[in-house]
Amino acid sequence: MDKYTLDHKTPTLKDFVDTADFDQSEIMDIINLSRVVRDWIKGGGYLNSLYHKSLAMLFEQKSTRTRVSFETAMTQLGGHALNLAPGAIQLGAHETIEDTAVVLGRMCDMIMSRVDRHESIVALAKYANVPVLNGMSDRVHPTQGIGDMITVYDHWPEGKEAKDIKFVFVGDATQVCNTLCEITTKLGFNFVHYGPENHKISDEWLEIGKKNAEQYGGSCMWSEDPACLEGADFIYTDVWYGLYDKETPKDVYMADFYPKYQVNDELMQATGNPNVKFMHCLPANRNEEVTDSVLDGPNSAAWDEAENRLTAQRGLVLYFGGVGQSTLDYIKERKEAN
Amino acid sequence: MDKYTLDHKTPTLKDFVDTADFDQSEIMDIINLSRVVRDWIKGGGYLNSLYHKSLAMLFEQKSTRTRVSFETAMTQLGGHALNLAPGAIQLGAHETIEDTAVVLGRMCDMIMSRVDRHESIVALAKYANVPVLNGMSDRVHPTQGIGDMITVYDHWPEGKEAKDIKFVFVGDATQVCNTLCEITTKLGFNFVHYGPENHKISDEWLEIGKKNAEQYGGSCMWSEDPACLEGADFIYTDVWYGLYDKETPKDVYMADFYPKYQVNDELMQATGNPNVKFMHCLPANRNEEVTDSVLDGPNSAAWDEAENRLTAQRGLVLYFGGVGQSTLDYIKERKEAN
Amino acid sequence: MDKYTLDHKTPTLKDFVDTADFDQSEIMDIINLSRVVRDWIKGGGYLNSLYHKSLAMLFEQKSTRTRVSFETAMTQLGGHALNLAPGAIQLGAHETIEDTAVVLGRMCDMIMSRVDRHESIVALAKYANVPVLNGMSDRVHPTQGIGDMITVYDHWPEGKEAKDIKFVFVGDATQVCNTLCEITTKLGFNFVHYGPENHKISDEWLEIGKKNAEQYGGSCMWSEDPACLEGADFIYTDVWYGLYDKETPKDVYMADFYPKYQVNDELMQATGNPNVKFMHCLPANRNEEVTDSVLDGPNSAAWDEAENRLTAQRGLVLYFGGVGQSTLDYIKERKEAN
Repeated sequence: MDKYTLDHKTPTLKDFVDTADFDQSEIMDIINLSRVVRDWIKGGGYLNSLYHKSLAMLFEQKSTRTRVSFETAMTQLGGHALNLAPGAIQLGAHETIEDTAVVLGRMCDMIMSRVDRHESIVALAKYANVPVLNGMSDRVHPTQGIGDMITVYDHWPEGKEAKDIKFVFVGDATQVCNTLCEITTKLGFNFVHYGPENHKISDEWLEIGKKNAEQYGGSCMWSEDPACLEGADFIYTDVWYGLYDKETPKDVYMADFYPKYQVNDELMQATGNPNVKFMHCLPANRNEEVTDSVLDGPNSAAWDEAENRLTAQRGLVLYFGGVGQSTLDYIKERKEAN
Repeated sequence: MDKYTLDHKTPTLKDFVDTADFDQSEIMDIINLSRVVRDWIKGGGYLNSLYHKSLAMLFEQKSTRTRVSFETAMTQLGGHALNLAPGAIQLGAHETIEDTAVVLGRMCDMIMSRVDRHESIVALAKYANVPVLNGMSDRVHPTQGIGDMITVYDHWPEGKEAKDIKFVFVGDATQVCNTLCEITTKLGFNFVHYGPENHKISDEWLEIGKKNAEQYGGSCMWSEDPACLEGADFIYTDVWYGLYDKETPKDVYMADFYPKYQVNDELMQATGNPNVKFMHCLPANRNEEVTDSVLDGPNSAAWDEAENRLTAQRGLVLYFGGVGQSTLDYIKERKEAN
Repeated sequence: MDKYTLDHKTPTLKDFVDTADFDQSEIMDIINLSRVVRDWIKGGGYLNSLYHKSLAMLFEQKSTRTRVSFETAMTQLGGHALNLAPGAIQLGAHETIEDTAVVLGRMCDMIMSRVDRHESIVALAKYANVPVLNGMSDRVHPTQGIGDMITVYDHWPEGKEAKDIKFVFVGDATQVCNTLCEITTKLGFNFVHYGPENHKISDEWLEIGKKNAEQYGGSCMWSEDPACLEGADFIYTDVWYGLYDKETPKDVYMADFYPKYQVNDELMQATGNPNVKFMHCLPANRNEEVTDSVLDGPNSAAWDEAENRLTAQRGLVLYFGGVGQSTLDYIKERKEAN
């Protein structure tokens, strides 16, 4: 059943830097808002909640999914997104990050940025007087996390409760892994990082996950024992080559991960769950971390997940734009009128 | 007289990859739609047929005309175009073309792409679940073809029928030449490629043109004899330097084409037609393939032709967006109401 | 009091290339229009004066402020700005500037360009059949000038008349200095360039300023005597490193300007005016031409000034778009209706 009332009528924080900054009810507010708006627009409805509003998108790294999903989201909500591509503005070069933040905040209604270093998004949020959304840093990928949890709710295993959901992240402990560790445990799921010890999720994040688990009823662990796959509802993976200046040569990462951590039919079967779903933040290096047979197979939710990047961005710009509740009110009114 | 009823209420194919994929009546549908919409907007009318819709523009090659015309077209129809510039997404690099196609199709309502290789546009069309428009490949330039035929109808020689129109393409057999060979013969005109044998239009395209001619009543030929210019209604040329990785050194191409195939006053006079129109897809290398006197002269239709890129793009996004007929209905209603 | 009637219902010139091309009343028209529209939008009002209109933004140089402010301005007025980034179109490379101007003028409703050479903006204006706005050349920065004068009126020293205003530009005679010399004297202020003789504002601009001063009642001078700071209402500075191909090595420019021309607390106090405002076109090289203490201090108007780039661009696109008066009429009507 759709939920038309947010627990938090306005965000508790101006900025969306890390899912860890929000409690469960606020994360669920964003997820629910995103899903209701998605269904409204897919059903042919229009919205102008961000009419004539501008989102500055500041990229220090190339992006397909993040850029296209935010730009389309703004368009569908009556607003506009400005693409400041890598090199268009060099954060901290001819001008300090702080000064750029102040100026963009004076000209635009919201800022989204993909940054090289997490400190940069923190500085943007601190100095801009408008909401700042983290479009990925070297530490976390919170908009991906929201989209992924929407996908989990879309593909919810029938009859299960949150405390029964097992979510296994396979492979390298990327920033996507960090965010998933945080957000799945916040939602009360059981999170496992299944990967080699030299690419193990950090103790800091394991601790965060364990604290969440205590509070919300799930669990959190790392393992290199394939037995940990048993009973998984969701198998998630990401590329092995690393990111940014830390890109690893192919022979090195293959030695670390292949073949044990490749998500192939055998690994999927090791879950013992014929309905297990496969997820990937994409882009995929096909037949490295995942085989064609899995990515293109009947259990793949990866393409729905890609579309849910758009679902999440709409929810995020509405929520942090302060028009989440008014948008829900409008949709409810319109539905009741019909 | 304006035509408010399309022969094909919906496109027979999802994608616009090559004019050769469509029959005469469907090409005429697109041309007529484009012209009616152009006149409506130039007359001060507004349209929102693509309200809040997104077009992803994916460029593997730089472009001025294609990019600006599609972006303006979407704006004028209430939608938005996303510019994915060369390098922003590398087709087939970190992600396969197929995966990029699927993802863009999940986030946007339509895709337009200028590609290095024709296979890429074919793959995009196959894997994206939304309409894909070919913004030029190394094989064809179909959106240019539509704009050019609109220009022909705008500058139609008084009292002539299609079977009397002579259209001469001078110089190098570029992808624009291929498309013009196809589309002019499909519309029943007489097409001539006048160029040196080592830059002659391929037998494949000559055959396509000849088959069209049989079906629709025109003719198709290649010639290096200047006598072929006689009676031309339209003289068209394109740059000589080639495209993509096949760019030719200046001394080589000058030796091949200059001065025989330069469109200058003498060549225009050789048509014996004082009303012959000059066309060029632009950009022009002034005083190489065309002289200033012709490009800027009274018989030049090249600037109207440039504007008709915009005319064509509006028609194409409406038609392949599935709102061609409803747009015509709306304009007709509004005109009758006034 | 807001002024709802422009002296010039339509621009006297199609293009905005240089503030020197316009008389005082027309400059004041643009400033007043910009301020009324700013207050309307900041008060929650919406405008669609440029509904579905397209502005082509053509950059030969990178830009943050100019690009973001024009793009946001068009969005807030119901239109759209196309970003043609440096390298996307190379003016005068594969196509002459003149041809590019004609083509863009056929496809878009207005053109704004930041050019390497002033001749380029003059050529764009001459050949395009739509309004062309100069987003900075190596000679002038007129949109900055309008935004800066809006900031002066926003921070007007209580009880003073134009002829009492003292505006001191400190440091290098950049194109911003040229435009400020012109526009401040046109508005009847007293302009001083305080800088070293080898970076002195040119005699050409000093003459223009002096002629303005004769006509409008202010004054215009260059000085390297710190006594010229006395009584200043506004202290303005710009970076020292030069622009474009004329960038100066750091040791050279430091030797020329430092420490004498650094705007620090001491220099601000030398004005003897506790209410003197500091302005900077930004980006700033902190602790070179201006200290943190001044830029971030209570007398800094630099951030309001940055926001007024947006204020000015809205006014400029409305005015040169020919909808300045109709926009004021609309705002007045709506205000009277409430």
